[in-house]
Amino acid sequence: MKLGVCYYPEHWPREWWGDDARRMAEMGISHVRIAEFCWSRIEATPLQFTWEWLDEAVAVLAAAGLKIIMCTPTATPPKWLVDRSPEILAIGADGRSRGFGSRRHYDFSSDLYLDESRRIATLFAQRYGHHPAVVAWQTDNEYGCHDTVVSYSENALRRFKLWLRQRYSSVEALNTAWGTVFWSAEYRSFDEVALPIATVTEANPAQRLDFQRFSSDEVVRFNRMQCEAIRANSPGRDVTHNFMGFFTEFDHHEVAKDLDFSSWDSYPLGFTQMFFLTPEEKKRYVYVGHPDIPAFHHDLYRGTIPGGRWGVMEQQPGPVNWATWNPAPLDGMVRLWTWQAFAHGAELVSYFRWRQAPFAQEQMHAGLNRPDRSLDQGGVEAGQVGQELKALAARVECMPVPRARVALVFDYQSIWMANIQPQGHDYNALELSFRVYSALRCLGLDVDIVPPSRDLSGYSMVVLPAQLREDSALAVQLASIKARVVFAPRSGAKSVDLAIPGQLPPGVFAGLAGVRVLRVSSLPPGVGVSARTANGVVLQVSRWREDLECGDEFVDARFENGAPAVVKYGRARYVAGWLDHDGWVAILEEAAFDAGLEPQRLSDGLRVSRRGEYVFATNFSPNTVAWAPADVAECWLGGDVLEPLSVSIWKVLPSLTALARK
Amino acid sequence: MKLGVCYYPEHWPREWWGDDARRMAEMGISHVRIAEFCWSRIEATPLQFTWEWLDEAVAVLAAAGLKIIMCTPTATPPKWLVDRSPEILAIGADGRSRGFGSRRHYDFSSDLYLDESRRIATLFAQRYGHHPAVVAWQTDNEYGCHDTVVSYSENALRRFKLWLRQRYSSVEALNTAWGTVFWSAEYRSFDEVALPIATVTEANPAQRLDFQRFSSDEVVRFNRMQCEAIRANSPGRDVTHNFMGFFTEFDHHEVAKDLDFSSWDSYPLGFTQMFFLTPEEKKRYVYVGHPDIPAFHHDLYRGTIPGGRWGVMEQQPGPVNWATWNPAPLDGMVRLWTWQAFAHGAELVSYFRWRQAPFAQEQMHAGLNRPDRSLDQGGVEAGQVGQELKALAARVECMPVPRARVALVFDYQSIWMANIQPQGHDYNALELSFRVYSALRCLGLDVDIVPPSRDLSGYSMVVLPAQLREDSALAVQLASIKARVVFAPRSGAKSVDLAIPGQLPPGVFAGLAGVRVLRVSSLPPGVGVSARTANGVVLQVSRWREDLECGDEFVDARFENGAPAVVKYGRARYVAGWLDHDGWVAILEEAAFDAGLEPQRLSDGLRVSRRGEYVFATNFSPNTVAWAPADVAECWLGGDVLEPLSVSIWKVLPSLTALARK
Amino acid sequence: MKLGVCYYPEHWPREWWGDDARRMAEMGISHVRIAEFCWSRIEATPLQFTWEWLDEAVAVLAAAGLKIIMCTPTATPPKWLVDRSPEILAIGADGRSRGFGSRRHYDFSSDLYLDESRRIATLFAQRYGHHPAVVAWQTDNEYGCHDTVVSYSENALRRFKLWLRQRYSSVEALNTAWGTVFWSAEYRSFDEVALPIATVTEANPAQRLDFQRFSSDEVVRFNRMQCEAIRANSPGRDVTHNFMGFFTEFDHHEVAKDLDFSSWDSYPLGFTQMFFLTPEEKKRYVYVGHPDIPAFHHDLYRGTIPGGRWGVMEQQPGPVNWATWNPAPLDGMVRLWTWQAFAHGAELVSYFRWRQAPFAQEQMHAGLNRPDRSLDQGGVEAGQVGQELKALAARVECMPVPRARVALVFDYQSIWMANIQPQGHDYNALELSFRVYSALRCLGLDVDIVPPSRDLSGYSMVVLPAQLREDSALAVQLASIKARVVFAPRSGAKSVDLAIPGQLPPGVFAGLAGVRVLRVSSLPPGVGVSARTANGVVLQVSRWREDLECGDEFVDARFENGAPAVVKYGRARYVAGWLDHDGWVAILEEAAFDAGLEPQRLSDGLRVSRRGEYVFATNFSPNTVAWAPADVAECWLGGDVLEPLSVSIWKVLPSLTALARK
Repeated sequence: MKLGVCYYPEHWPREWWGDDARRMAEMGISHVRIAEFCWSRIEATPLQFTWEWLDEAVAVLAAAGLKIIMCTPTATPPKWLVDRSPEILAIGADGRSRGFGSRRHYDFSSDLYLDESRRIATLFAQRYGHHPAVVAWQTDNEYGCHDTVVSYSENALRRFKLWLRQRYSSVEALNTAWGTVFWSAEYRSFDEVALPIATVTEANPAQRLDFQRFSSDEVVRFNRMQCEAIRANSPGRDVTHNFMGFFTEFDHHEVAKDLDFSSWDSYPLGFTQMFFLTPEEKKRYVYVGHPDIPAFHHDLYRGTIPGGRWGVMEQQPGPVNWATWNPAPLDGMVRLWTWQAFAHGAELVSYFRWRQAPFAQEQMHAGLNRPDRSLDQGGVEAGQVGQELKALAARVECMPVPRARVALVFDYQSIWMANIQPQGHDYNALELSFRVYSALRCLGLDVDIVPPSRDLSGYSMVVLPAQLREDSALAVQLASIKARVVFAPRSGAKSVDLAIPGQLPPGVFAGLAGVRVLRVSSLPPGVGVSARTANGVVLQVSRWREDLECGDEFVDARFENGAPAVVKYGRARYVAGWLDHDGWVAILEEAAFDAGLEPQRLSDGLRVSRRGEYVFATNFSPNTVAWAPADVAECWLGGDVLEPLSVSIWKVLPSLTALARK
Repeated sequence: MKLGVCYYPEHWPREWWGDDARRMAEMGISHVRIAEFCWSRIEATPLQFTWEWLDEAVAVLAAAGLKIIMCTPTATPPKWLVDRSPEILAIGADGRSRGFGSRRHYDFSSDLYLDESRRIATLFAQRYGHHPAVVAWQTDNEYGCHDTVVSYSENALRRFKLWLRQRYSSVEALNTAWGTVFWSAEYRSFDEVALPIATVTEANPAQRLDFQRFSSDEVVRFNRMQCEAIRANSPGRDVTHNFMGFFTEFDHHEVAKDLDFSSWDSYPLGFTQMFFLTPEEKKRYVYVGHPDIPAFHHDLYRGTIPGGRWGVMEQQPGPVNWATWNPAPLDGMVRLWTWQAFAHGAELVSYFRWRQAPFAQEQMHAGLNRPDRSLDQGGVEAGQVGQELKALAARVECMPVPRARVALVFDYQSIWMANIQPQGHDYNALELSFRVYSALRCLGLDVDIVPPSRDLSGYSMVVLPAQLREDSALAVQLASIKARVVFAPRSGAKSVDLAIPGQLPPGVFAGLAGVRVLRVSSLPPGVGVSARTANGVVLQVSRWREDLECGDEFVDARFENGAPAVVKYGRARYVAGWLDHDGWVAILEEAAFDAGLEPQRLSDGLRVSRRGEYVFATNFSPNTVAWAPADVAECWLGGDVLEPLSVSIWKVLPSLTALARK
Repeated sequence: MKLGVCYYPEHWPREWWGDDARRMAEMGISHVRIAEFCWSRIEATPLQFTWEWLDEAVAVLAAAGLKIIMCTPTATPPKWLVDRSPEILAIGADGRSRGFGSRRHYDFSSDLYLDESRRIATLFAQRYGHHPAVVAWQTDNEYGCHDTVVSYSENALRRFKLWLRQRYSSVEALNTAWGTVFWSAEYRSFDEVALPIATVTEANPAQRLDFQRFSSDEVVRFNRMQCEAIRANSPGRDVTHNFMGFFTEFDHHEVAKDLDFSSWDSYPLGFTQMFFLTPEEKKRYVYVGHPDIPAFHHDLYRGTIPGGRWGVMEQQPGPVNWATWNPAPLDGMVRLWTWQAFAHGAELVSYFRWRQAPFAQEQMHAGLNRPDRSLDQGGVEAGQVGQELKALAARVECMPVPRARVALVFDYQSIWMANIQPQGHDYNALELSFRVYSALRCLGLDVDIVPPSRDLSGYSMVVLPAQLREDSALAVQLASIKARVVFAPRSGAKSVDLAIPGQLPPGVFAGLAGVRVLRVSSLPPGVGVSARTANGVVLQVSRWREDLECGDEFVDARFENGAPAVVKYGRARYVAGWLDHDGWVAILEEAAFDAGLEPQRLSDGLRVSRRGEYVFATNFSPNTVAWAPADVAECWLGGDVLEPLSVSIWKVLPSLTALARK
């Protein structure tokens, strides 16, 4: 549990660096991320390098006892490179070349840019790879930010054809997989294939899916190249990348395979304003953020690394600049978010950024310090956590990585499928994953968010909120384990080629789920239907509804017309509609009881997390809340009464109950 | 009254064809539409043809006793043709070439594509034109779908100049017609004229109108070419095209002049969600569709053929895939829609499609059968209609084509004029035509929707909901007949050159209407004004209001400030504002009484139609409704109590009343 | 106080001209604006001129005693010029060349077009510059209309680089000013700089600001060229340009430096529908327009000329054609708007247009006369004002230019800064300026809207609603005068390079304001916070809130949490949030009392204006209102009871009170 900060020495006078480093250390910050975006300062002119300033910055930071996370500066190729080789620029969906002057203008499919990136990454790794203070590397910055995964360039087309050739071997196989007989879109050779762009109406969905897969693989390729360049020259250092929130344009599980630990950039207030929350939620959480937004991503990115190593690389420290509206968080939120991340197992929480820059695009993005060097509210709270960590460190070596009894399966390819053919304007697979996750968290359950390929044998309950894609290996695994399984609608609705399974959905999951989906309806806003469970719970269904075929004895909830709404078949539940929050809580609570878990309806805004014998309670509500672990426990921070926006930590003592549970 | 189905043998294993054909016949289906979109299967490589599979499909269907509607596959030029001749691609309003990979990517103005289309259509006609099972042809598919009537290509510009030269003879005439003296847009020659695209603010409205006329004529040219190619090689067969719903980008009356019968594609739930209905209506009709949406188009397309021959080429069989939201229709709707079409005179109702395709863009579009070959709800209901038709067929040879006493004039050019200069954001001429039609239908009146050029002498009442365009011949005709005439606002508001008539609106209709429009106001949402008729009926006016000059003695309704809202002058009524549904019902009811008709306010959701002595009642409401013809009648289907979503048919027996009315 | 009208003789038969001129004169119209947009009629073919018709038009108008405002026709380069030199076309943000067929398609940065414009302007000036009836010139028409200030052409890029070179001398200075170290955007030379277009995410804000400054300077250059060409050939005539409403894309203060008087085009109903008013306001003012929309612009454009000479060049005469909805104004509004303009000091109110054109883009735009030559309502009211002016003229030579005791500072560069980085989606600096102005007007205060550089010594109160930009000279001036000063939030929030001031906002204004802004929050709709003043007034804050540091004794209003909402420090007030109308009225009323003014809460819809000893009261409400000056006064028009939509004028007689106040 370490604190870090993002620092841009090139933005500040050299005479400030020493004081900055000293104050960081005093606040309890141990890690500093540097060198992102600094290409033009290192290589202002081709092959003429100015390392001296960075050498000095590294030296100053190291001298203050700080550890350095060094970045490759490839997210911002400099102007001379763009002018010399305009083909490195990505092409947008509008057919136009991206302009210079912001960031991420490069094309993942440009071999030329790949080479340039390898060159600069290698040079960085060679120069700083063995420095004792340099303990980790970050590749590039926020892959895909601002819609930059996909490029419609000639390079992309050329490499997409190669990718298709590799995937399908024969063009006949491609024609079959895509169903090109439809609308006379058959290809005679891989060379005839075009990018899915500028079509009169929607392009072939399987083609679009393959183009997304290809584009994701291009990100993997790019990142792998950097990891290799770094590892070859900086042995023993961790390599990471800073992922983003609610972002699914590439398969993070695949990219993470090349990383030592995952990290992500957590901006709860910005995400609350910019994503799918309702107007009421946006208003309610305006100063605090939806409590499950950070948690969802903590658990998601922890799940990208089998060992569970992860951290927050950028933590919102105050108001940001990029959301439609940018309120300041309430006092206490920076501390609460920091502890929440530790509760979910973060190794590192690094604040973005040390000091608010007074110039350029992000000048309205707060830092721990204001532009005039005075300490801002975020800095005050970071310092407080630094103190608390020091106190804790005296008592505990390290806490175990969280390991939950509930697994939520998250599949990027399924998200793409749903985005390509949502069938209803507001069927949003990512949102549904989040909503189901949030319901689990409101039941006090810890959750591992895992890829479909993860070993599920240790879980008591497995939830599939958006597993549209048929995954035979997953189906086999689900059949072989003992866990309770909850399928949301659209489970198994699509073959790997984005077609309807031959035996209808849920395809390979049909055996376990005990249902067949005969028909689906997407429902416009304001049109809903209710259902009632065998236990008398009324469920509200909107957006999506399915007509199921199943044995009548397995129907656990029925729509108003008697049709099955929830089917309980053996260990599995299949839910035939988009439920609201209360509905998911009700269904998941029943499933959790069946699974031998102890779900607990937490009071509003309270969240509980466990890391082995350590229990964290975080209170996101404006009210004081009383809560404590059921087990005998020793309180390490806070107490059994949680003030608004506060955290408590207990260590549970071995007891008969606890031992018995093992 | 025949049933048909759309079938794509190329999508299915050959071993299924025979069983499919057999089951079609058993269900009472007599017609099968095939070969749409199959160009790449017939001519996978230039000039190398693979007819064999289609020969076999035709043979299999014919062997089952089915009649075939053969299509030309020109809506989807294959990749090799696009690669060889990229100039066949249309250019969008964004100046970019349409991409390959969906459909309708061709340019109507490409002579090269015209030649290719003639070639392939001729080859189809030569091969199947004399086959005894081939009884009809469909040209292309859904002209204009996905906004494809207009192209901004070099070809379009070249041909537009020719078209202008033909229309105006001299550039001086063009300059006068367009009023190019305004904003210095005068042309010195036809060669100087550019397409109305990428202008800083709106382009010249008369130029835009002419470009729309030209683009419409290009569709006529393309369709005529196909009709000629087919007729030359397939004598005695009907030629049709499948039109769409709420689509006015080309003049369907002109295209239909080359057809033997009109057909259209009826998707009531999709249209309900995608068009101008209010949120309340979209919610209310979510599972049933607005009852007048199919009816409006039935009557519109019946009116495109002087003899009234028409059919539904694609009937929604369940949920579709292309609307923002795609609910499943209530059980019974597929049957009800089918009977509704027959009530309006359809020769054929053909379902789209036989079986849901599990792949490609339309995989979520239901069919009569599910992808796994099981019968879906739509198939069940189609089979039920098949049985009912068989029972009826035993008693009646054929029913007469409907002939209404009310004509609603529908003018595509007026729609274009309104779209080009709506003057108020929500003045929608198509919607107004629909709203007026719907009011007439709620009064139990049958309606013929006719072009302005149609002989109106047989009608008792003529309604002009959106005749913006001055049409002298129509004015003369209206003056010469005896019918009651109802003018909506904006009648005669524009000259043929989209200018204000010299004597102010309603221009050529002024003599009949007895008014002059001094000023118009378009009103933003929430701003309305009420009026009161001489009979005390309160009318709510929104969106549009006109200030009229007329003899005070002719004022039939007045706005709050005393100004004329409805003027009754001789046989004519002129309505000076956009009325709500109740307002139109009130005004049209009075006009109908004056016309000697017997309007009847039908209960909510009930609609009544007549084909000679046959009377159909259809109940779209969720309630049971009692209704029967006033005349002595023999009930052929259903009864005097209509269950929700049911139909009844009576044959009226000759009576004194009925004879007297003749 | 003169009446004018816009007339296009080229649109009408010559035989109508004489009658038109006669009727204008009879109505009391003295000025006629002509020749806008007529290039293609004068020079239909390069260098072949047809002056004869314009000579005759001038002669006919002059013969009727009318004075002529002659226009240069450069807003509409003809087709032959565009075809010969396509490089004169501007390039849009979409990278596409503007098309021919509307207006304003030219590029301000095209030297070639500058030359052509100089040529045609010179020819006009040579031909008509000494004509005795030609008393004034209008350059071009509505610079910037339809988003045409900025062009992304090669010409713009070339000249932008020159402009930057001139501003910064060294590229190092540019890099520093823009903060290009951020995101590796450093330039090695001016040649490397690109236009801020097609970037992946927002381009550098200082670059965008400079590009806006440059684009504004290009307008200044273009206008100056025309002024010089005119003055060289038409000595003694006034030169003006017709500005627009709510338009800030160039710096009107800079353009006006080359003009003799300012004029603008006033369309109150269109502006009410098209701009930032709330739906409730749009509904409430649908037929009348927000009363402060014309007034705001009257005072703004009066302030562009140090001597205060200004007029309305185009006055809405009835419904227009270009707003989303276009209602007709209530009877009386055209007269009321005319008198309102005179109340604010207009020399001229010129109606657009004499007669509604029946053809082309603006055919639905009303005129004083209808297309059929009959007098429209606007004409009736213009004639009434003509009569009233004649009666007044018998009693008064001329009224003094208004001179207010309240100055509202308006800075175009600050508006650009706010538009480039609004930080909250609805922080709209122009709206805030308008809202503050409106609050002042509801207090019965006359307002001068002035640039930051204007001498402020004569004012009792200075209000800065949106002075984001640090302006040292303004700060010095504010410190030296005696006036009360009111700062709105974001005052001094940005350096001249669009960075955060080194000592935090309000930067150079900190000494006077007595505060430091530690943090800002932008607030989404529905999220607000209230504050309470020392006097117990409750203020509602939405959209924007600041956290201030200040001496506690200076806090005049506090937010719910005790933080400062309004700070009163010496002569200054600093407001820390976006107030609603009532809030601004309350704060400004207190400030006005402190300033020794006599604010008066006027009844709803009533507005009062003074020109020296003359007092105008205008009633925009639907109710009769009683009001009269407090001083002894002689009523010249109307009376102490104002009917709805009426005006009264008094001359205040010298009294003890009034003399004492001096």
